[in-house]
Amino acid sequence: MNITIVGVGLIGGSIGLRLKETQFCDKIIGVEKNEANAKKALQRGLVDEILPLEEAILSSRVVILTVPVDTIMNLLPTVLDKVTDQVIIDMGSTKTNILRKIEQHPNRGRYIAAHPMAGTEYSGPEAAIPNLYKDKVMVYVEAFRTDEDAFEIADALTEQLEMKTTFMNAAEHDMHTAYVSHISHLTSFALALTVLEKEKSQGRIFELAGSGFESTVRLAKSSPDMWTPIFKQNRDNVLEVLEEHIKQLQNLYTKLEKEDYEGLHKLIKKSNKIKRIIK
Amino acid sequence: MNITIVGVGLIGGSIGLRLKETQFCDKIIGVEKNEANAKKALQRGLVDEILPLEEAILSSRVVILTVPVDTIMNLLPTVLDKVTDQVIIDMGSTKTNILRKIEQHPNRGRYIAAHPMAGTEYSGPEAAIPNLYKDKVMVYVEAFRTDEDAFEIADALTEQLEMKTTFMNAAEHDMHTAYVSHISHLTSFALALTVLEKEKSQGRIFELAGSGFESTVRLAKSSPDMWTPIFKQNRDNVLEVLEEHIKQLQNLYTKLEKEDYEGLHKLIKKSNKIKRIIK
Repeated sequence: MNITIVGVGLIGGSIGLRLKETQFCDKIIGVEKNEANAKKALQRGLVDEILPLEEAILSSRVVILTVPVDTIMNLLPTVLDKVTDQVIIDMGSTKTNILRKIEQHPNRGRYIAAHPMAGTEYSGPEAAIPNLYKDKVMVYVEAFRTDEDAFEIADALTEQLEMKTTFMNAAEHDMHTAYVSHISHLTSFALALTVLEKEKSQGRIFELAGSGFESTVRLAKSSPDMWTPIFKQNRDNVLEVLEEHIKQLQNLYTKLEKEDYEGLHKLIKKSNKIKRIIK
Repeated sequence: MNITIVGVGLIGGSIGLRLKETQFCDKIIGVEKNEANAKKALQRGLVDEILPLEEAILSSRVVILTVPVDTIMNLLPTVLDKVTDQVIIDMGSTKTNILRKIEQHPNRGRYIAAHPMAGTEYSGPEAAIPNLYKDKVMVYVEAFRTDEDAFEIADALTEQLEMKTTFMNAAEHDMHTAYVSHISHLTSFALALTVLEKEKSQGRIFELAGSGFESTVRLAKSSPDMWTPIFKQNRDNVLEVLEEHIKQLQNLYTKLEKEDYEGLHKLIKKSNKIKRIIK
């Protein structure tokens, strides 16, 4: 069978690389509007050929959407219009709006909403790596609305990527990802802006940037074209989490301002409980 | 010659491990009030023996202070009182207050303020690793006030740790470290508290915690005993940076709340300039 990947950047390109390794399919077709990226994807062997969207859909058993989430919002209904028995997988980071948009579509059953909890701060076809997904979690969202046979094909593909799987509804998914992914990015963006603000007058910061700084700020290298639409699509959850995060920072600020070092110590000790969640 | 390390945790223990590898000195003496840690340090071979502070100073050519910064504040004057021609190196993360405190001490010339820009989120003797310092930066603060021969010994030790070096005055040092180290920790503590706050009602977050989340939140495993004194000693700078950081987060919040996605995109793109500072 043939597989089409729409958007051959970090996410789509890494799927292509891995599926070529495992020989899961006969041919991988890329759909890519950006000509430079299309060329790089072919050069790096992420896909076997580049085709226009409609032609690619007609030639494929599976179509994977790995473009920014606002583009998925525009594209998915059109793609579903063209489907006969193909399987359409959307790999975007937000789900509530997209699921609402296509819930009445006659081909709804051919579609599965999936979100691979994997990525790096880099983007584009040059960032694709074959083991990006290994041992990471694929979240299936409202999978019960997908046809049995379509789900099985999608899940076989997930297995090729060596991923674990979990199931959620759309509201759960969008809320949890706001906490574990979207807020981390906003924090990094803000931290980078804070340092850059100061760096105007102080040139020596980069000399000192150690590993702690690098790990908290590395996500600030992430693409604005990918992340602005994510924040837009998950606006309510992100605002809620960001409000809580600012509240926590203000609480730390107040403790320090009032020289309440016992209170500050308690808060830091409480935050250490994150050890339960991360290794 | 013998070297004494006061406080054999992550920082002191890692120095001990490395110096034993390079055979830079005859004997490494540990001073450690916590009996369990003293025992572990001996078991792991971080030091050759444990002695009381006064005895250790009398038997050593170099004394390195790697206890929390508030303990250094209390300890350093007493240590300098006992010095004849030994070299005293303080490895704490803040410098302005400690330098002010001992500036009139008759043995001031035997002391050097140094700050190795290295660490992990772990603490205690079990966290010590021999290559912690390799290729990292050692900051010497107001080194011109240190006797020439004392500085040379301290710098030979830094070379054993395979570190690069740089020089700063106290105000510069404390301001820069607030930006590249102290704020990263506060952000992580706040991020952990944000997630833990929600986790009370939501048990599934840990399933999704990917690498982005882990890297921004891992510093929240850091010791409150080490970090509360750092924030205390560098209070003014930390408050200034934290205020700026909260301002940047509020700015991102406002852009999203007002659905100004062009403005949000611009801010993210601006934050990408952090690439100039980190690799």
